[in-house]
Amino acid sequence: MNKIKLGILGGGGDSLIGVLHRVASNMYDRYEITGGVFNPNYDENISFAKKIGVNTGRVYDDFDTFIEEETKIPIEDRIEVVSVLTPNFLHFPMAKKLLENGFHVICEKPLTTSYNEALELESLQKQHEAIFAVTYTYTGYPMVRHMKHMIAKGELGEIQKVDVQYYQGWINPVIHDPEVRKTVWRLDPKKAGISSCIGDIGTHAFQMTEYLTGMEVKSILSDLNMLYDDNSLDLDGTVLIRFSKTVKGVIRASQIATGEENGLTVAIYGKKGAFKWEQENPNILYHITDDKPKSIIKPGHAFVSDVANDGTKLPGGHPEGIFDAMGNIYKGVAKALRSENAFDGEYPNMNDGVRGMLFIEKVVESNKNGNVWVHLDNQ
Amino acid sequence: MNKIKLGILGGGGDSLIGVLHRVASNMYDRYEITGGVFNPNYDENISFAKKIGVNTGRVYDDFDTFIEEETKIPIEDRIEVVSVLTPNFLHFPMAKKLLENGFHVICEKPLTTSYNEALELESLQKQHEAIFAVTYTYTGYPMVRHMKHMIAKGELGEIQKVDVQYYQGWINPVIHDPEVRKTVWRLDPKKAGISSCIGDIGTHAFQMTEYLTGMEVKSILSDLNMLYDDNSLDLDGTVLIRFSKTVKGVIRASQIATGEENGLTVAIYGKKGAFKWEQENPNILYHITDDKPKSIIKPGHAFVSDVANDGTKLPGGHPEGIFDAMGNIYKGVAKALRSENAFDGEYPNMNDGVRGMLFIEKVVESNKNGNVWVHLDNQ
Amino acid sequence: MNKIKLGILGGGGDSLIGVLHRVASNMYDRYEITGGVFNPNYDENISFAKKIGVNTGRVYDDFDTFIEEETKIPIEDRIEVVSVLTPNFLHFPMAKKLLENGFHVICEKPLTTSYNEALELESLQKQHEAIFAVTYTYTGYPMVRHMKHMIAKGELGEIQKVDVQYYQGWINPVIHDPEVRKTVWRLDPKKAGISSCIGDIGTHAFQMTEYLTGMEVKSILSDLNMLYDDNSLDLDGTVLIRFSKTVKGVIRASQIATGEENGLTVAIYGKKGAFKWEQENPNILYHITDDKPKSIIKPGHAFVSDVANDGTKLPGGHPEGIFDAMGNIYKGVAKALRSENAFDGEYPNMNDGVRGMLFIEKVVESNKNGNVWVHLDNQ
Amino acid sequence: MNKIKLGILGGGGDSLIGVLHRVASNMYDRYEITGGVFNPNYDENISFAKKIGVNTGRVYDDFDTFIEEETKIPIEDRIEVVSVLTPNFLHFPMAKKLLENGFHVICEKPLTTSYNEALELESLQKQHEAIFAVTYTYTGYPMVRHMKHMIAKGELGEIQKVDVQYYQGWINPVIHDPEVRKTVWRLDPKKAGISSCIGDIGTHAFQMTEYLTGMEVKSILSDLNMLYDDNSLDLDGTVLIRFSKTVKGVIRASQIATGEENGLTVAIYGKKGAFKWEQENPNILYHITDDKPKSIIKPGHAFVSDVANDGTKLPGGHPEGIFDAMGNIYKGVAKALRSENAFDGEYPNMNDGVRGMLFIEKVVESNKNGNVWVHLDNQ
Repeated sequence: MNKIKLGILGGGGDSLIGVLHRVASNMYDRYEITGGVFNPNYDENISFAKKIGVNTGRVYDDFDTFIEEETKIPIEDRIEVVSVLTPNFLHFPMAKKLLENGFHVICEKPLTTSYNEALELESLQKQHEAIFAVTYTYTGYPMVRHMKHMIAKGELGEIQKVDVQYYQGWINPVIHDPEVRKTVWRLDPKKAGISSCIGDIGTHAFQMTEYLTGMEVKSILSDLNMLYDDNSLDLDGTVLIRFSKTVKGVIRASQIATGEENGLTVAIYGKKGAFKWEQENPNILYHITDDKPKSIIKPGHAFVSDVANDGTKLPGGHPEGIFDAMGNIYKGVAKALRSENAFDGEYPNMNDGVRGMLFIEKVVESNKNGNVWVHLDNQ
Repeated sequence: MNKIKLGILGGGGDSLIGVLHRVASNMYDRYEITGGVFNPNYDENISFAKKIGVNTGRVYDDFDTFIEEETKIPIEDRIEVVSVLTPNFLHFPMAKKLLENGFHVICEKPLTTSYNEALELESLQKQHEAIFAVTYTYTGYPMVRHMKHMIAKGELGEIQKVDVQYYQGWINPVIHDPEVRKTVWRLDPKKAGISSCIGDIGTHAFQMTEYLTGMEVKSILSDLNMLYDDNSLDLDGTVLIRFSKTVKGVIRASQIATGEENGLTVAIYGKKGAFKWEQENPNILYHITDDKPKSIIKPGHAFVSDVANDGTKLPGGHPEGIFDAMGNIYKGVAKALRSENAFDGEYPNMNDGVRGMLFIEKVVESNKNGNVWVHLDNQ
Repeated sequence: MNKIKLGILGGGGDSLIGVLHRVASNMYDRYEITGGVFNPNYDENISFAKKIGVNTGRVYDDFDTFIEEETKIPIEDRIEVVSVLTPNFLHFPMAKKLLENGFHVICEKPLTTSYNEALELESLQKQHEAIFAVTYTYTGYPMVRHMKHMIAKGELGEIQKVDVQYYQGWINPVIHDPEVRKTVWRLDPKKAGISSCIGDIGTHAFQMTEYLTGMEVKSILSDLNMLYDDNSLDLDGTVLIRFSKTVKGVIRASQIATGEENGLTVAIYGKKGAFKWEQENPNILYHITDDKPKSIIKPGHAFVSDVANDGTKLPGGHPEGIFDAMGNIYKGVAKALRSENAFDGEYPNMNDGVRGMLFIEKVVESNKNGNVWVHLDNQ
Repeated sequence: MNKIKLGILGGGGDSLIGVLHRVASNMYDRYEITGGVFNPNYDENISFAKKIGVNTGRVYDDFDTFIEEETKIPIEDRIEVVSVLTPNFLHFPMAKKLLENGFHVICEKPLTTSYNEALELESLQKQHEAIFAVTYTYTGYPMVRHMKHMIAKGELGEIQKVDVQYYQGWINPVIHDPEVRKTVWRLDPKKAGISSCIGDIGTHAFQMTEYLTGMEVKSILSDLNMLYDDNSLDLDGTVLIRFSKTVKGVIRASQIATGEENGLTVAIYGKKGAFKWEQENPNILYHITDDKPKSIIKPGHAFVSDVANDGTKLPGGHPEGIFDAMGNIYKGVAKALRSENAFDGEYPNMNDGVRGMLFIEKVVESNKNGNVWVHLDNQ
């Protein structure tokens, strides 16, 4: 099957989100990064493209040139889908123009800076029948997908309560000094829009709520905390939610939950049972009921739904992070090949391999001779 | 910086180890897969190369051709390092010939099928001054590297006890029926060598022991279990180990620990404290001492050593598996673009984005109006 | 020191709360159960007194007789403090009369059935200078006390957010059938008062909030769920709380959180750090901060505050439940002594002791002889 | 039913084991402490008896007097069973004389100081048909009993591997200084016998192994560590065990596992599944299999065996330690009644009760009025 031609806007330099999208697009051998505009500065743009191995012929000066030049290319060679990784305020104009010119879009969240812009994009998307993804990344975890699938199948019965939390503490160290907090872009309405905490992480909690239950929240009541009079954006908020008169829930989000890292947690209670999940331990899904022992569901097993196993590349017991472990070994080898400073033990070397073979032989020898001590001297 | 030219032997078709090495090599933008021999069958080899986007010009008929052709290429364009992902018995002949022809090598474990072969490779490697990695993958986890680093710095004081476990249960369903167990290649000495359990996973435990402590095991005493008379290879073993007369430990490995997935655990006790770590929860490192509360060390923080943070791509609280979550979203989009059957919710779509913007605006409105209920109707 | 003379009202028959108060009163050798009224039925009352080993001379017909007779006894021999374990609606009249007659009181929660009654009791207590405890049991856990103490000492800095949850699922199996839910006394306003969920467990969460922070909640906003029109009492509720304009929190309580057992959890975030605690794992207190590894505080260590260690009877690592473990062994022996049906292994017996001595001797022998196999045959 | 008359030898003063046995004997209202010898010193003995509320008429000068006087009492009034809580070397002579005089015995572990003494006691016990318990306390946990019961019922199928660990670190702070280690009684062969680590905790692990599996260990091979030449007793040991040629296991015990508290853990693997349990979290039992999600079994549920629920006094979700929580509240009240220094918040008081009632009323009011803010001012 021919690969999908992917364009990327933004994500250059040290961008973490850029790394995340590139590694992700590569994971199932289905995309090739065909071109894009990684940086506003053309030279940096080109040198970044070289660094990541993208053909510079389709790395463009700016977004307008991208549209102009790509649309000249015959449809079968043209970039099909574009990942928008630029600052939030650029999501709307870029996504809009991409849709108008027939591209499919993968857009980082938040989709836009206002609801009206979002509606405009939605209307364009329908008109152009485009594929449009908003990267609420946490929905990609196998156990989240299993949860959604099982809820849809009725495993929990009718839902009767939803509790979703997203607690972080990162703003605590910079919020209490008036001079410091002035400098935080997240707290500047011009850059962050009308909300800090809810806009950044509350939306994840909200999307997860609707994504998992398959139900729409009908009304909400919120209480936000700005903590200081000279700060106009929320740092913390509790939102009461109602799906109907008798199906309720609560979304709790905070950036001043001191010491919390990325504490997105989900608890969904139905008449027949409940699921509980925590983003910081994403391979574990708890299933509890009235009358059976709590069970711990993990990916990679036959008892897990296809939708989850389709997103699981390794057998049970291998946390997904094992890709990173192997990636770090490859990095260690790269440093050695390029004579860069490496940490001690950055990749397991020949001696590790040799000792391993010695170990196997001596273990078998000790056992064969009646469980006696044997020495492990390298020759 | 120009990328490292990587060749790959094996890892074609549905090979999981192939996926793992490809994703890993891509993670830090330092390698390009230049060529290789992915499958013994030439047609499959070529179609696999196309699938993963490798230039077929340097995909060869077989290993001998690979060596012959690559060595004709000028040194600056030649493949520099080759990943050997073939069945175990091929590791030795391939690695040997690669070293003899001036290639660097990344070799899957076990290094060879005997200690003597391993010694021969080691001698060749020294002679050719080659970089040679053996992919004991678990050493790549940031918390394993932090552990090694802190032990070397003396955080635990003198080591006085080491306990490493590697328990799996995968062989339990196939071991009890005489007809079934005959068919397991791991239990065939011709294919698996002199050991099953110790050779496959005991070596990981052993390597971890020496890797983390920086000490060499001097002698061992083992007790292996073959469970049935008609089975000649070990399924389970306990190995007493000694670093010196008073520094001892134990390595425990099993393939009949029913229900265990990939239970590699490490506990290292020194005079000043101990570290405990579990592969199935790899982002957590426990540090315990005589007189302070137990502490939980996680990657991505300033208090973690450089060697660990160098292998951590995201801020604290984001499990490494988030790459997979994003990868699954990209796969969902790919299915949509190719009109393949997709699961419901395989990527978050426009509506998720629109609802998110609505949510933010309504939350701010409810709060501003004195914490009252507001409706969340899409226009 | 002479023991405190304790009277008990209620708690007879199979009452669990009775067991809890009796075992608790005995734990530090400071009380003796001198008399009381355990059951409304006199014969049962007396036979229960005999069963638990209370002198029947001061077991009375009813509460009025209790007051009449005890007040005739010279003050130095009179019951000093009375535990009120009767149904909720009796708490007020009994506590009132006890206070009026000069007794100290230990009263189960809820204190009364209305706020006005509670105020009346408070006024009486002040007038009589009585000791009056309300048994919010969870405040007795050593780690809860440590938390309170450390917060008072400023360990967390100024508090900026409080999140307390009390989720149970017990009402789920009996709520969905209209005929069944009619029979649940907790849902009958005549027996349960104006609230089910908040009255029963929300109050625990509220008390914990004020107990731990040392601050008073100033205002609240609640959303309750009755689930069915023919049910008038709350089964679930979220309560927004404010200590001040910028110090906020949320209390969440539910009896329809299907599958939850007794999920009281606490998270208190201050400028300098946070504490997190869960009732179902009460020996663990998490302390998190901006810049240090998460630490796990457990009782019985020198680094724990005196107030916590004063309530810890055993060294670190022995969960408090070990009393129950030993209690079960004593019960096993009692069954044997009374020739009752016992479960196999209900107490460890002579053979266990004998085998233990054999094991020790053989272990030492194997080691002394150079780590060889020795047999473990009983003589 | 009349209570069992219990005598106690030892356990006076600040003895923790004394507290444990007294509280335990009281838990099910089946024993009364009738007399004993708590201390070698008569005055202390009597004053201790008064403190714990035991009739001093049957508190004796010494053990010989105890035997002499009790045996004069008519059989129906005589002490029936005696708990032996004295130093280890006294277990044998006391238990022996008790058996010879017709008493039943509850004896602390280790049973004796040598296997021969143990055999002598066993023979006496059989001759006198006495009830004799050795208090391996950990067998009293409900989840341990459930495990034993389910294994006996075949839940795990044939056992194929057993792994029991007992790691402590308490000796680490006192072992490395030659002057300090001389003073540790556990390391003095005259006081501790032939073994320190195995004798003290290895025996628990061994007993648990046989108790749970219902099988006898047939042979063992051990490796002990004394760490220093001037120390003759083991501080750490690994013991290979065999139930049969193909059913094996390992017992690991240590007192130099720095930072470990009381780390008794059990893993038992059978053909059909496995159980895993940890003493420091005793209410949790993990059940794992080849093909179902891991399940977490907790006490107090209908799905748990009778033998476990018979030893569980409270509903699911209440950790057994709740007795201690209530005990601490009673202690706080006792301090108040005796005008002793108390910690702040040592018992929840009238104000907690009053605030609770206010909270309930205001929550209901806020909800009724449409989820609005209401104030919580005490009148």
